[in-house]
Amino acid sequence: MRRGLSAAMQKPDKLLFTPGPLTTSLSVKEAMLRDLGSRDEEFIALVRSVRERLLRFAGVSQARGFEAVLMQGSGTFGVESVISSVLPEHGKLLVLVNGAYCERIVQMATRLKIPVGTIRCAENETHEPAALESALQRDAAITHVCAVHCETTTGVLNPIADFGRLVGAAGRTYIVDAMSSFGAIPIDVEGAGIDFLISSANKCIEGVPGFAFVIARRAALEASAGRARSLSLDLLAQWQGLEKTGQFRFTPPTHALLAFGQALKELDDEGGVAGRNARYTANHRVIARGMAEMGFRAYVPTARQAPIITAFHYPAHPNFRFDEFYRWLSDKGLVIYPGKLSQADCFRIGNIGRLYEKDMLALLGSIREALHALDVPIPVT
Amino acid sequence: MRRGLSAAMQKPDKLLFTPGPLTTSLSVKEAMLRDLGSRDEEFIALVRSVRERLLRFAGVSQARGFEAVLMQGSGTFGVESVISSVLPEHGKLLVLVNGAYCERIVQMATRLKIPVGTIRCAENETHEPAALESALQRDAAITHVCAVHCETTTGVLNPIADFGRLVGAAGRTYIVDAMSSFGAIPIDVEGAGIDFLISSANKCIEGVPGFAFVIARRAALEASAGRARSLSLDLLAQWQGLEKTGQFRFTPPTHALLAFGQALKELDDEGGVAGRNARYTANHRVIARGMAEMGFRAYVPTARQAPIITAFHYPAHPNFRFDEFYRWLSDKGLVIYPGKLSQADCFRIGNIGRLYEKDMLALLGSIREALHALDVPIPVT
Repeated sequence: MRRGLSAAMQKPDKLLFTPGPLTTSLSVKEAMLRDLGSRDEEFIALVRSVRERLLRFAGVSQARGFEAVLMQGSGTFGVESVISSVLPEHGKLLVLVNGAYCERIVQMATRLKIPVGTIRCAENETHEPAALESALQRDAAITHVCAVHCETTTGVLNPIADFGRLVGAAGRTYIVDAMSSFGAIPIDVEGAGIDFLISSANKCIEGVPGFAFVIARRAALEASAGRARSLSLDLLAQWQGLEKTGQFRFTPPTHALLAFGQALKELDDEGGVAGRNARYTANHRVIARGMAEMGFRAYVPTARQAPIITAFHYPAHPNFRFDEFYRWLSDKGLVIYPGKLSQADCFRIGNIGRLYEKDMLALLGSIREALHALDVPIPVT
Repeated sequence: MRRGLSAAMQKPDKLLFTPGPLTTSLSVKEAMLRDLGSRDEEFIALVRSVRERLLRFAGVSQARGFEAVLMQGSGTFGVESVISSVLPEHGKLLVLVNGAYCERIVQMATRLKIPVGTIRCAENETHEPAALESALQRDAAITHVCAVHCETTTGVLNPIADFGRLVGAAGRTYIVDAMSSFGAIPIDVEGAGIDFLISSANKCIEGVPGFAFVIARRAALEASAGRARSLSLDLLAQWQGLEKTGQFRFTPPTHALLAFGQALKELDDEGGVAGRNARYTANHRVIARGMAEMGFRAYVPTARQAPIITAFHYPAHPNFRFDEFYRWLSDKGLVIYPGKLSQADCFRIGNIGRLYEKDMLALLGSIREALHALDVPIPVT
């Protein structure tokens, strides 16, 4: 049974072709039918196990100098916990920008009064490593570099390992926002020289929203002592609390943690990152091919497209009105995602969460029907 | 059916005599067996309804100039969202301190580099309004005053309305942390001149943890433009986002919101704040009387004790070891709470959540057995 039945409404939930919150398994949701005390042994054991498993899925370990820190709130809270906790008073952040989520990090640093530089490229392109190299050579003030792995804005996959080698060679600290890739796209955390990697519970691990997590190189984490600008988002203090007592400093989302424990088990059952990658890649191929057959143009070239979420240009035909298209699909129980691009009119289709090839085919069939209903000729142009 | 059955373990969860996360109803937890898109209509309607009902339970309305803002994270994140978003650059915060949660606010302001003053009294006493009045007269730099309604450290109930009249008369902004009172202890928000009141989902409304909420006087909220020190915790931007699109700026804990919608319904069904207050007061009386009969001494005098959580002195007998006492009760499925006092060795018993008189009697019976097992004579001294 894959689609949760609403106890109240007794009808299946819509399928979410979005970047999260996602369609999760019923067993993940059922794990929340409990109330655990946040300082009780069972919960402490759960938190310990979750942190250990996160390190394992990241391909690192405490023995190799890495730590997993959980942080309440959305993924953005997790990113801000890193930026606001690890940049020193006289530090400077360089952000590689090719989408809305990198922009948000620039905005975040600005708000925190942290000097921030940017290298920008088009939202369907990725940065030339040479541009990063010369920026690092040019500006000695830069202490930290931040890149987004899979930009959810477009689904573009940035070459974080290439960036990481340059950041490491230049002796700077490397922060990677792997929000919508961690758990489904292999990341060589150690090889890419990543000091802080951030992701969240409700993305490719297929838990429910409520917290983010950070995979941190312990030495870099410890070096951040005295830097945190916020009490709630203090990454080092959060880690120290988890290490010392096994507990969160402030009330954790106990139910979201229970769901996450089950979600990690199901990730293991699916064959870990490789297994999940295989399903998502298959899902993505079905969508990419089916949409191309109807004439839709993907915004990102295939070579740079991650198998997570895909942006498609609006058809040019004047009968295509996105709001109606969205509503038509939503009424059929299929939720797609609006665009977030500054440079083109696009909508997005996510293929992550508890979705399979047959769900992708169902969506394609309904998109075809929606175009008929809107009187938009196929193939679209 | 009041105690959730774990799908995995098929045994009832422990009852939580804690300040939250709490024992919640099964129907509140079952509301989470769904996956809603965070930008889909049904979720937007839920968020709107939750915000409206929060205002109603606060006895205010948009028409009377108040707004409800939801903020991801724990209650502390909600408090920090207010402190970090509304204090102006040259503002000063005065905190009325008589427990760990007021101390945390001092620590938070210090971390944010916001000048902060304090008035302190013993943890089982409340501040003389005259002390506040003279502090406000003495220090013209103070722009904001913060008090905690029910200090969860001890269960002491602070006279926030008395404070509020003085704060209002002195023309300062008034912030109240009503974390563990809102929904169960009547608060005259308007009459007490409260500008910002903070509480969280997993306290007296009996939802699950994942977000906090703020009841804000709109004029005070709007006056905070340009002050927010954090992007994630920006209270004004969060409100503006909720007003403009009905959506959260960043991923909301959709499942915790579904649970909260149901919890608010159940608060209504119980007769609102008055009804919930009656049950909690009855629960508290059973505990207070039963513990007194066994010789336990409450830390807070009855006149200042809120019917939420009660701190009891450790018995003096050398056989009483709190860890063993806690574990003995926990093994019986009854979770009490350690103390958090700087001034005395205490443990705490909460009486909020989906708990009834028979649960209180069960706890008292088990405490008696635990004392026998530890060979601590009753009455304790």
